[in-house]
Amino acid sequence: MFQSPGVKIEVINTGTELLLGNTLNTHGAWFGRELFQLGLRISRQTTVPDGDAIREALAESLVRADAVIVTGGLGPTSDDLTREITAEVLGLELITDEAALRSLEGFFTSRGRTMVAANLKQALCPVGADILPNANGTAPGIYVPPRLNGRSNAAVFLLPGPPRELYPMFHAEVPPRLRALSGVEKINEALVLKFTGVGESDFHHGIDARLSEIPGLEYGYCAHIGEVDLRLIGDAEAIREAREITLAHFEPHLISENGASLEKTVVRLLKQRGMTLATAESCTGGLISNRITNVPGSSEVFTHGYVTYANEAKRAMLGVPAADLETHGAVSEQVARAMAEGALRESGAGIAVAVTGIAGPGGGTEEKPVGTAWCGLAVKGGETRTFKFYHPRGRKDFKQSVSQSALEAVRRRLKEL
Amino acid sequence: MFQSPGVKIEVINTGTELLLGNTLNTHGAWFGRELFQLGLRISRQTTVPDGDAIREALAESLVRADAVIVTGGLGPTSDDLTREITAEVLGLELITDEAALRSLEGFFTSRGRTMVAANLKQALCPVGADILPNANGTAPGIYVPPRLNGRSNAAVFLLPGPPRELYPMFHAEVPPRLRALSGVEKINEALVLKFTGVGESDFHHGIDARLSEIPGLEYGYCAHIGEVDLRLIGDAEAIREAREITLAHFEPHLISENGASLEKTVVRLLKQRGMTLATAESCTGGLISNRITNVPGSSEVFTHGYVTYANEAKRAMLGVPAADLETHGAVSEQVARAMAEGALRESGAGIAVAVTGIAGPGGGTEEKPVGTAWCGLAVKGGETRTFKFYHPRGRKDFKQSVSQSALEAVRRRLKEL
Repeated sequence: MFQSPGVKIEVINTGTELLLGNTLNTHGAWFGRELFQLGLRISRQTTVPDGDAIREALAESLVRADAVIVTGGLGPTSDDLTREITAEVLGLELITDEAALRSLEGFFTSRGRTMVAANLKQALCPVGADILPNANGTAPGIYVPPRLNGRSNAAVFLLPGPPRELYPMFHAEVPPRLRALSGVEKINEALVLKFTGVGESDFHHGIDARLSEIPGLEYGYCAHIGEVDLRLIGDAEAIREAREITLAHFEPHLISENGASLEKTVVRLLKQRGMTLATAESCTGGLISNRITNVPGSSEVFTHGYVTYANEAKRAMLGVPAADLETHGAVSEQVARAMAEGALRESGAGIAVAVTGIAGPGGGTEEKPVGTAWCGLAVKGGETRTFKFYHPRGRKDFKQSVSQSALEAVRRRLKEL
Repeated sequence: MFQSPGVKIEVINTGTELLLGNTLNTHGAWFGRELFQLGLRISRQTTVPDGDAIREALAESLVRADAVIVTGGLGPTSDDLTREITAEVLGLELITDEAALRSLEGFFTSRGRTMVAANLKQALCPVGADILPNANGTAPGIYVPPRLNGRSNAAVFLLPGPPRELYPMFHAEVPPRLRALSGVEKINEALVLKFTGVGESDFHHGIDARLSEIPGLEYGYCAHIGEVDLRLIGDAEAIREAREITLAHFEPHLISENGASLEKTVVRLLKQRGMTLATAESCTGGLISNRITNVPGSSEVFTHGYVTYANEAKRAMLGVPAADLETHGAVSEQVARAMAEGALRESGAGIAVAVTGIAGPGGGTEEKPVGTAWCGLAVKGGETRTFKFYHPRGRKDFKQSVSQSALEAVRRRLKEL
């Protein structure tokens, strides 16, 4: 389903810290997005430790790829060997680039620092290669065009590791060279359809066969808790057709067509309807309001959140009748209803959502096992609805699942209003 | 500090979304940390698209490595080919594992869902390999021991991609097998010291030189938002010495010595002191109570949470004087104080923490720029304290930083009581 791009691009990230887990490798995702906008793909990404390990990885990539992008190892220290090893692997001599040396000296003087001898090697460049200026650091990048000396048919980009240096250098130097290499003019479109309440296998069962018949379409699923993303890539016509087929089956479950999160969609719907939301949370402990307030501008539509973890809080903050708590228990349809109606009344909001459930590990019973939750949904001037959820998962995943189901209930109710 | 491992481990992550940039690959860093604690290292990490691309990458890793860990591609869809291609590359026949099939059926029935034909292939296992049960999803993992049929000297682990399935399966199934492979009976001891309120560079300047002199000690830092983990690996004596040096400098900033989160430490301190906590949140929108309620057993010590996003909510729910809001503004020392004291009064808790700030992107002023926050801390029978934070970051990072600073203020106050 993933078609290899017109030009095969591999990315090699060097950095021991990436493999020890000290640092998250955000380069892969960043390059993916940048290259995708150029109509290109990464066919492989590799992470190797600092030092000599780049040698083997680079040699292998040069055989497979049309272009190899290497990040890191351009610094002044003893384990910054990317420049030296690349020249060696390509059989190119390293010489000092005068312009690079001057700008290196300029970098230090402009910052009132003195350049140490170790920095001198940062001005070295393989004969015939291009220096890529670095406005934000000491390490210039290097571009080695393909077939420079017959050793390799692949182009090689050496770029610095730190994002603040890498990103501007990439934007200034890489796209024009990649365009020239690939001859790609037309850029594919992409559409991300986000769904909830359906599983990945439902899509496979429902539409895989038909999507796979659409010429020039790439598609893939990505499952999160209570959510499946369908990614469509191709020309406008392929995407239109794939979207039509997909929505014919799953439109009721559609959260967004632009990758927007469920909470962002809920905030948008609230704004469109000029309504405010109140939350009353027991088992989710504030996760629902936390998700809502992650959305910029949510203060326009979210005003009051009640985290009523204890029964006493349900009574005092939301006026839940003690009788309901005693007769039916905190995790019950009646209490979920009373919480939602209490939140609506206390906050004066247009819509209020309430959840109460058993996150575990303790607190489960035969009749109400860990993973059970009740949701109440109250609307000003409308009838209150209740829903029962069962998400038998670990504590955090249970909270995430319940918040997802509750926000989806809000989304569907808002669509009706 | 980085030593090449006794057993060479390569990690292959499959997932088109990882290369298109839709999803950040957090597996690399996670595996790095997990293996580090076992005294092991990743010698190379590779990301390939869904589908057939795993074939080439796996074949190459089998030649280089003693153990290959593959994630993803075990799902039911047509681009989930990891199981099939691995069997092919290793020359092993795939047969249906009856136990896996039954637990697969059990997974669906327990959730009231019906299993579709596409799921059947998830019960396939190479002859002679082990099925690794998946308690949290449909895809069982697979372990192929080395030299099963002479095709490969490397062990192969096939693990699911979703963290909620991957993490528990890894912890249950992988370490004992890796220990057996590496032949190391006694794995180094590991100690994770978690700190807040100090930066990674403070550690570099403060103790790096002395830690690096301790024989047989390996250490690494892992920086999160408002948090730095120091991981110490070595024999008991090396760890004892390193711990002593570290705490001599940074003990006041120590959150935990067992990797426990700040919120978990706060819950433990509350239980020890027989106190309950109430939260009053404006800019964090419920994140603080959400973090607290992520801790199992937190219901013993957390009862009331007030998410007062609007000024009206601050007045109605916490009795914040309108005069304070008008005179000083919602983001002010006075309002933070009134929120904390209101939460303490309304909830009857022993300690109450309140935060109010400007998350942005909008709402900043010259005098109160985006990133500004005030925290109030009220204790029954004690004086109320206030703190000013400045975390000029993106909206989500701001919320995380403020919640971290607020929870740290609670931790320090509790230590005094």
